Amino acid sequence: MSLTLAQASDIAAGTLAAARTNNAKPMAVVVLDAGGHPITLSREDGASFFRHEIAHAKAYGALGMGADTRAVAQRAKNNPVFFSSVTVTVGGNLPLSPGGVLVRDNNGNIIGAVGVSGDTGDMDEQCAQSGIEAADLAHGSQA
Amino acid sequence: MSLTLAQASDIAAGTLAAARTNNAKPMAVVVLDAGGHPITLSREDGASFFRHEIAHAKAYGALGMGADTRAVAQRAKNNPVFFSSVTVTVGGNLPLSPGGVLVRDNNGNIIGAVGVSGDTGDMDEQCAQSGIEAADLAHGSQA
Amino acid sequence: MSLTLAQASDIAAGTLAAARTNNAKPMAVVVLDAGGHPITLSREDGASFFRHEIAHAKAYGALGMGADTRAVAQRAKNNPVFFSSVTVTVGGNLPLSPGGVLVRDNNGNIIGAVGVSGDTGDMDEQCAQSGIEAADLAHGSQA
Amino acid sequence: MSLTLAQASDIAAGTLAAARTNNAKPMAVVVLDAGGHPITLSREDGASFFRHEIAHAKAYGALGMGADTRAVAQRAKNNPVFFSSVTVTVGGNLPLSPGGVLVRDNNGNIIGAVGVSGDTGDMDEQCAQSGIEAADLAHGSQA
Repeated sequence: MSLTLAQASDIAAGTLAAARTNNAKPMAVVVLDAGGHPITLSREDGASFFRHEIAHAKAYGALGMGADTRAVAQRAKNNPVFFSSVTVTVGGNLPLSPGGVLVRDNNGNIIGAVGVSGDTGDMDEQCAQSGIEAADLAHGSQA
Repeated sequence: MSLTLAQASDIAAGTLAAARTNNAKPMAVVVLDAGGHPITLSREDGASFFRHEIAHAKAYGALGMGADTRAVAQRAKNNPVFFSSVTVTVGGNLPLSPGGVLVRDNNGNIIGAVGVSGDTGDMDEQCAQSGIEAADLAHGSQA
Repeated sequence: MSLTLAQASDIAAGTLAAARTNNAKPMAVVVLDAGGHPITLSREDGASFFRHEIAHAKAYGALGMGADTRAVAQRAKNNPVFFSSVTVTVGGNLPLSPGGVLVRDNNGNIIGAVGVSGDTGDMDEQCAQSGIEAADLAHGSQA
Repeated sequence: MSLTLAQASDIAAGTLAAARTNNAKPMAVVVLDAGGHPITLSREDGASFFRHEIAHAKAYGALGMGADTRAVAQRAKNNPVFFSSVTVTVGGNLPLSPGGVLVRDNNGNIIGAVGVSGDTGDMDEQCAQSGIEAADLAHGSQA
């Protein structure tokens, strides 16, 4: 099982709805399938053009490491030299900040990931989680 | 003036609606702003993972050359060696096939581009044009 | 469902067994999951060091296009300018030769791909198909 | 003299056997020849898709520096700015963590390298060393 376009669209819509409710800065949201390939990308008016790249990299990095980027960023604080080198190894696809969130099915299997960039890492992650919940799916921290 | 997220979403929805009406193969559609940066990307279920890359490159190539990729592909038939070299020069961002279509405002100014991949080049282009029309905007061949 | 390491190892072993039975030139075989990420790679003694890169690209290209590279190569004969440009778009991940073969489960779903390089495209493909059969799975042309 | 496919396969099998004995997290193991080109790659079920990239880079980095990555990571702690820059210079092929281990013949000549990623750097390295020993070869720290 993998995320469908309908599910990914629901996640993206839910993410941006949360962003507007929270009065967040303009955001980009990217939803990837389990293999790391994009299903949807949406960039709000006023979101500058690194936003979707960072959003993509957060989602890709969560899948590549098998953990939300919040957890990876926490580990990086204890081992900055290693994680600085690893971000280069993986072509920059591991932004060390919250906002890359795994999407799981009801059995806990990883079926994709969401990446959000635009506001603080905390706000980015909160909106991503809201989007996943809006699509009736489970996010990383619920595993 | 540049495309808004609302306009890009209308284009993408119109493109995929046309694809389903025409019983096209699963498609990816990418909408770029005038600077070549993505506003939306949507990949249908069953569309393999080069589709969005090719769709992106078609839209980017149309902007980069200032012409729909149909016109560029036609020129390439008469000068294949040059265009083969140019595709390398621009990092592959010029797939020599229809389906990359410029988006213009009512004054004829380029405000973005749509790229579609999934079926034949002709079908890809037809769906892209339908999407642009659905958003009440003008496409390349109308300029 | 995706290929397991056990299945991928069976495919690789079966591919190389077929290569030795057929007295093929030294070969590399790469098995990818449905998302295009490697599960196994094996390069025989005497296989030069482009072999695994070409094998990887064949498997990746089959997944990216949703078709065995034999079928893609056939299409490319009728539209060489487009396919030359697309190989650049996808970073070279589309060698226009047989030897990239989709792996399917019993329901016809794509669960991975095998890429082989070392001998002729025909021989490469034959060995890949033998490997998939040795693992009791279905290959592309059986879909 | 360089590692053969038979030897590399023994190393990989020994590495993963040690991983299972030690109840390590899912791992990827890559074995390179002395020129830095892959002979085998194996990624266990459940190992996320950065694992083989990091494993490859650890092995490549050990060969590129002529030392196990444990020793390089130790040096990096005393000179982090320089090593951060070097990781970029070499395209990320130098993850600053244990788990990239040189393989030597009985005369102490470097004939390849093993890279492992999946658990802690210490566990990754221990499994790599076990794999090399299982193939009756000498690892870096024995030189």
